[in-house]
Amino acid sequence: MSIGDAPDTEVLGRVFLARVIEPGDEVAGRWVREFGVGEVVRRLRAGQDALPGVSGKRWAGLLARAGRAEPERDLAVAREAGVRFVAPGDGEWPGQLDDLGDARPLGLWVRGRASLRMWALRSVAVVGARACTEYGAHMAATLAAGLAERGWVVVSGGAYGVDGAAHRGALGAGGATVAVLACGVDRPYPRGHTQLISRLAEQGLVVGELPPGDHPTPSRFVLRNRVIAALTRGTVVVEAAHRSGSLVTARAAQRLGRHTIGVPGPATSGLSAGVHELLRQDAVLVTDAADVVELVGDMGELAPDRRGPVLPRDLLEAPARRVLAALPGPRAATVEEIARGALTTEDDAIARLYELRSLGYVERHGDGWKLTRQAMISVQGGRREC
Amino acid sequence: MSIGDAPDTEVLGRVFLARVIEPGDEVAGRWVREFGVGEVVRRLRAGQDALPGVSGKRWAGLLARAGRAEPERDLAVAREAGVRFVAPGDGEWPGQLDDLGDARPLGLWVRGRASLRMWALRSVAVVGARACTEYGAHMAATLAAGLAERGWVVVSGGAYGVDGAAHRGALGAGGATVAVLACGVDRPYPRGHTQLISRLAEQGLVVGELPPGDHPTPSRFVLRNRVIAALTRGTVVVEAAHRSGSLVTARAAQRLGRHTIGVPGPATSGLSAGVHELLRQDAVLVTDAADVVELVGDMGELAPDRRGPVLPRDLLEAPARRVLAALPGPRAATVEEIARGALTTEDDAIARLYELRSLGYVERHGDGWKLTRQAMISVQGGRREC
Repeated sequence: MSIGDAPDTEVLGRVFLARVIEPGDEVAGRWVREFGVGEVVRRLRAGQDALPGVSGKRWAGLLARAGRAEPERDLAVAREAGVRFVAPGDGEWPGQLDDLGDARPLGLWVRGRASLRMWALRSVAVVGARACTEYGAHMAATLAAGLAERGWVVVSGGAYGVDGAAHRGALGAGGATVAVLACGVDRPYPRGHTQLISRLAEQGLVVGELPPGDHPTPSRFVLRNRVIAALTRGTVVVEAAHRSGSLVTARAAQRLGRHTIGVPGPATSGLSAGVHELLRQDAVLVTDAADVVELVGDMGELAPDRRGPVLPRDLLEAPARRVLAALPGPRAATVEEIARGALTTEDDAIARLYELRSLGYVERHGDGWKLTRQAMISVQGGRREC
Repeated sequence: MSIGDAPDTEVLGRVFLARVIEPGDEVAGRWVREFGVGEVVRRLRAGQDALPGVSGKRWAGLLARAGRAEPERDLAVAREAGVRFVAPGDGEWPGQLDDLGDARPLGLWVRGRASLRMWALRSVAVVGARACTEYGAHMAATLAAGLAERGWVVVSGGAYGVDGAAHRGALGAGGATVAVLACGVDRPYPRGHTQLISRLAEQGLVVGELPPGDHPTPSRFVLRNRVIAALTRGTVVVEAAHRSGSLVTARAAQRLGRHTIGVPGPATSGLSAGVHELLRQDAVLVTDAADVVELVGDMGELAPDRRGPVLPRDLLEAPARRVLAALPGPRAATVEEIARGALTTEDDAIARLYELRSLGYVERHGDGWKLTRQAMISVQGGRREC
């Protein structure tokens, strides 16, 4: 659903259910799959025939929440805050979240210009301890900057420590970054990251499955991690103590068939102990962004075909088409030049450039961007001979 | 051959060949295997019918060396320096060196009281960069001390940096340690380790395949590493830059079916880069001695049966029998007490205790040593009922 459209009943139903059902509730996910959104909403509103798998007490709790839910109001509040609701079936829905099965989010609330679907196609999670060491912060920032320079989108949780360093590293390299929050995306958490999260909403994306205004809870933090793991091609854990939440993300990534990746640290550091534990299991050791890209860059089922753009140019949306048109032939241009040529802001240009990157049209080249060989061939209307 | 015995011709022949043939020369190893020591010596002495696989020039070089070889003198010089020559077939020969095939040493020169064969049975190599960081030295010393405390023998190369820290860590924990040198064992190298190597000869073992007085060369350093790898159950690399000699040891260990083990470090450290490279391949990540023992302690084909001593008590040599008799029933005793009870020195007591450890008679218990359960059962002449 784009901002301004009248929501259809399926979308309204999902917004309603997002108020009633906690993230990752697989029992509820099964209701949706078996009965459909409309029927689940009807039963929760009517409060008569209970849905399977819930006890009387839990059912009463759900009904109480259902009684308070105001999906139209949630959508209006969101729209006011520049937040859109992206649901399965929507053009912006990242299809890889379907790998979560019945734990798939009912929908995601999204702040920011870029297409979440396009950005997620070429994304890597960089996560780790909140109370990280200087080494951890340095590694997170350096990895994120290196990933951004290579045209990859950095996904993290917006938290203090490793998460914040990763987001800042990507932003500092003029790159794309996505924060997946465990609360309403209009309600920055932690408070100390209010400014950072605003910048992310301006220059990147801020997403989450909780409705506007909702608070984070311990279980919401843990369940948010499955979204980070599912959205991305792989999860890099930079620093993590034993039993850290980042290990939850890494193990979710593993279960989902994503790459599980760890940055080693001193054997004497308790904040590397969790990473070392992962590395003793199935995670792959990396020491820089090139190592990460070598792993996740091997094109899997999530990737568009690299040999040619998957979308014909005239199917691109107008803003992306304008940015593409602003790229000067074979040489690289800065984001500033491109934004000027496309009559848009630099933040918007970056949003579009990363989408175009996902589609195989453009690539980063040092600080600038240029057309890929495939894109130039398609401009010329020709094809390589072999 | 024990000190003082008249050497047999096979032993004399091997001492002769050790002067003529460089360590690890597989062509020469094949001559020995195919023609026998006596015939290879005869041809090198006679200088008439060349051995297969050598060109005229190389053959001339070998003959020149053969002309200068004085095996009786080498043995006499060695004996004077407290060095014995241990050859395949000898009771002290570590059988696992046979895994080297035609690159098996012709024999090993050994300084120190303990039985190399017994000590090598439960040994681990701890190796790494000469120019290590403080972190590397700390990890080497801590791992070696932890291994020694668990009754394991620490093998290394006697070099500066990680090697020295490992030897000192083991000595500091009252443990057993073996230096495998790339030069004559009577000729400490590096010079700055003269004192350390003397202590190792007193309290541990100093071994090498080069005859008395021989110098190290770059290729001898590299080939020495195969002996370290083959002697031990596994090789732990603590710090190593890319293309470090320690990686040669680790890869040799891998080829020989030994455990290849690495200690992680900061991703930003060039001195951990080689270890990280290993860990990205097949090496196992460890952070402490317990991790190492968990790996190497899983009894392979090199290990004696743990359920009972492999050697009846009366087959033990007299010094070991005296040390065993000095152990007080079920409680642990210090090395000092044991040495007093066995009427020997502490260094000698440690040498015997580690041999007895290899045979399953004793175990370390904190700072002390005690009889194993199996040993007590065998003292009582009984057997466990199940």
